[in-house]
Amino acid sequence: MRVVIIGSGAGGLTVASNIKKYSENIGVTVITLENKVSYSQCAIPYVIGGDIDSFDEIVMHTPEYYGKKGINIIIESEVVEVVSKENMVKYRFKNPDIEDNELKTINYDYLVIATGGSPFIPPVEGTGLKGVFKVRTIEDGAKIKEWAQNSQKAVVVGAGAIGLELGFGLKKIGIDVSVTEMLPQVLPRSLDPDMAKKVQEYLESLKVKIVLKKALTNILGEDSVEKVVVGDENIDADLVILSTGVRPSIDLAKQAGCEIGDMGVIVNDKMQTSVVNIYSVGDCVEVHDGITGQKTLSPFGTTAVRQGKVAAKNLAGKESVFRPVLNSVVSKIGELEVGAVGLTEVSAKQNNIDVVIGRSQALTRARYYPGCKPIDTKIICSKDGKILGCQIIAKETVAERVDTMALAIAKEVRCDEITEMEFSYAPPVSMVVDPVVLAAEDALKKLNS
Amino acid sequence: MRVVIIGSGAGGLTVASNIKKYSENIGVTVITLENKVSYSQCAIPYVIGGDIDSFDEIVMHTPEYYGKKGINIIIESEVVEVVSKENMVKYRFKNPDIEDNELKTINYDYLVIATGGSPFIPPVEGTGLKGVFKVRTIEDGAKIKEWAQNSQKAVVVGAGAIGLELGFGLKKIGIDVSVTEMLPQVLPRSLDPDMAKKVQEYLESLKVKIVLKKALTNILGEDSVEKVVVGDENIDADLVILSTGVRPSIDLAKQAGCEIGDMGVIVNDKMQTSVVNIYSVGDCVEVHDGITGQKTLSPFGTTAVRQGKVAAKNLAGKESVFRPVLNSVVSKIGELEVGAVGLTEVSAKQNNIDVVIGRSQALTRARYYPGCKPIDTKIICSKDGKILGCQIIAKETVAERVDTMALAIAKEVRCDEITEMEFSYAPPVSMVVDPVVLAAEDALKKLNS
Repeated sequence: MRVVIIGSGAGGLTVASNIKKYSENIGVTVITLENKVSYSQCAIPYVIGGDIDSFDEIVMHTPEYYGKKGINIIIESEVVEVVSKENMVKYRFKNPDIEDNELKTINYDYLVIATGGSPFIPPVEGTGLKGVFKVRTIEDGAKIKEWAQNSQKAVVVGAGAIGLELGFGLKKIGIDVSVTEMLPQVLPRSLDPDMAKKVQEYLESLKVKIVLKKALTNILGEDSVEKVVVGDENIDADLVILSTGVRPSIDLAKQAGCEIGDMGVIVNDKMQTSVVNIYSVGDCVEVHDGITGQKTLSPFGTTAVRQGKVAAKNLAGKESVFRPVLNSVVSKIGELEVGAVGLTEVSAKQNNIDVVIGRSQALTRARYYPGCKPIDTKIICSKDGKILGCQIIAKETVAERVDTMALAIAKEVRCDEITEMEFSYAPPVSMVVDPVVLAAEDALKKLNS
Repeated sequence: MRVVIIGSGAGGLTVASNIKKYSENIGVTVITLENKVSYSQCAIPYVIGGDIDSFDEIVMHTPEYYGKKGINIIIESEVVEVVSKENMVKYRFKNPDIEDNELKTINYDYLVIATGGSPFIPPVEGTGLKGVFKVRTIEDGAKIKEWAQNSQKAVVVGAGAIGLELGFGLKKIGIDVSVTEMLPQVLPRSLDPDMAKKVQEYLESLKVKIVLKKALTNILGEDSVEKVVVGDENIDADLVILSTGVRPSIDLAKQAGCEIGDMGVIVNDKMQTSVVNIYSVGDCVEVHDGITGQKTLSPFGTTAVRQGKVAAKNLAGKESVFRPVLNSVVSKIGELEVGAVGLTEVSAKQNNIDVVIGRSQALTRARYYPGCKPIDTKIICSKDGKILGCQIIAKETVAERVDTMALAIAKEVRCDEITEMEFSYAPPVSMVVDPVVLAAEDALKKLNS
């Protein structure tokens, strides 16, 4: 049996290595456009900002490493067609410096489409100017880092997590930075406006300029970028990074005959597409929201890994299902950790879900313990007390607290249960009453009134 | 209505302030032997070790603070009798420097016995010598800190969390330290031997001497302590701290006619004793283990706080129940955070529960991110895959991970669910696959084989 995987991101490579974990007899071939495989996209802003020394460090494994595990990786190659009736893929070598148009083919028993997403480039003039970059691959990162060496003024378009991480990183290496966003807040996907405001204020305190409610209109310059126009505002810039989101790369899946939904490739809970021997995982697939049940995207490395494991298990004849997502996220922006999971207050309103809000402003450790840090927690609960969402901002231990709340949401835990729940305590590492408990108590007061 | 509370520890004061939260009309009086109220016992080792500057800092509130909230605190006073038939308490002022034998009385509608525990003093010679201390109250801590200024060689008897925290703290301020333990491992209550070994090795690497399997036989000296004898070993010492556990203080409850169980004061899930208008909370009460169902103790500040809230709600006419405990604990020993919750492998064997173990050795952040730290995780699962216990050791983010596992155990989450669960991810703060997921995968492999 041979499995061919298109794409070497977190999803594709997780399928590959997990198949080998369960069954050494399955042949696995990965075809990828990239030269480097198995690197951390999420780490790119931290290399640009200098927290991590070089891009080499964020490459986890080489194609040779996978070769030794019996996984054949065909790098720098583009799949041009999936001939699903013949269980065959056509591809060709693709390297900007080497011309080679020879079409090659490979047959599969099962195909996994892990084509990920491609950066959305706003349809405005000037995106092709020198000094204007997208940020998706490690090559993108390397180009930005090199260009940034001679940059004085940068504009990051898009105030999602990557945009803000980049904004901080560029400021850190001495560049004047504006982060622009067409929506009225930063981190619009994960946070409510009140919590987003705290992140914005933090960045502004570090002299990162935040420009909200202004969409990208134009990028101006002769050869290189000179100005960015957002709404009615002109911003001088010699470096522009378009961090304007990612669109699922669905062309190959479509061409292979897989059903495509409103958001991406449609898969069942085994990660199987509508074509029986084609699976799909990662940023290109459509998933369901664990709370609203609606179709959504979950373009996160962790989701890709979890989907990859499910696909691999099913391909290896084991049972495993992928469940609707809560989209747990965390981001480190400067010293600030920002995390969220589940429904926001805003998305609750949009979905006509009546909610009650609980808030706490507390500390990460005992008040008297040196190094304790403020922590802001917001929880979103249904009218019957179930936790539906949580947002946390602090300078430490946010990710782990978000994970606890992800489990609470998944298990339909109520506020009153959270207030009764055990939290471990020692003055150097926690408060005697956990910040989440304080937020739950606040919500409970409103629920009972 | 008047509630009288005996004891001003975490339990007693939580009852007091929570009653006032729910009903301002209830009169609340607290009678306490202590002069300082509302301080953190758990912080004492960190003041001795110098992480916290002075004992004043760990006092949260003064009696005056409580007075302003309508809570009357009678300090330095000993309750000598509870006359439950008359709903009356007899007490007298007790200060070592002032003689005052006048008996006073106070009537109550409800009484809360929050007498806590008293340090167990091993029945050997020499415990009364100068330089030999127990460690329970802030006064104990202050005496130790003063004596330690002229100490060169200390012995801490008992290798529980407080013993190890003290061992590290004394070493940190330049004293030669041995920590002795009659059992064959450190932290015998919370950790299995394999995990305890890692903590022991860490302390030994810092030149804290650990002496296991040797019970305290004798303390020798003329006026002050000179030697400690444990088993067949003589250890020179000019400072000895007895950190040999705490026994529930049940005398008043017994005298009041409350039923006493094998472990402590018997209470129902509302924290009510067998005497209808007497409640009891904190270290003096007997609780049930959430996994084995057995009677046990839970002498932790967090448990006292949770019990205090339950008692206060019930006293204020609201419903609330206290559930069996999982005994979540965390301790910071030097740079090491050590946490545990639920059943250990050893306690599983003692209770004839068949278990499967999952382990992982991972990192707290992405491998390439500066400052990532090793993290050791052990999970204990039932044969049907339910998580029953977890032990974690790392230099950061242990407490929060233990909390997630506490919720998992409480909600009877299975290993396979943990492997499918969402964990938030960003390279500076987490691994793309969480250490707990890796441990759960390890357990799952054994469960499926």
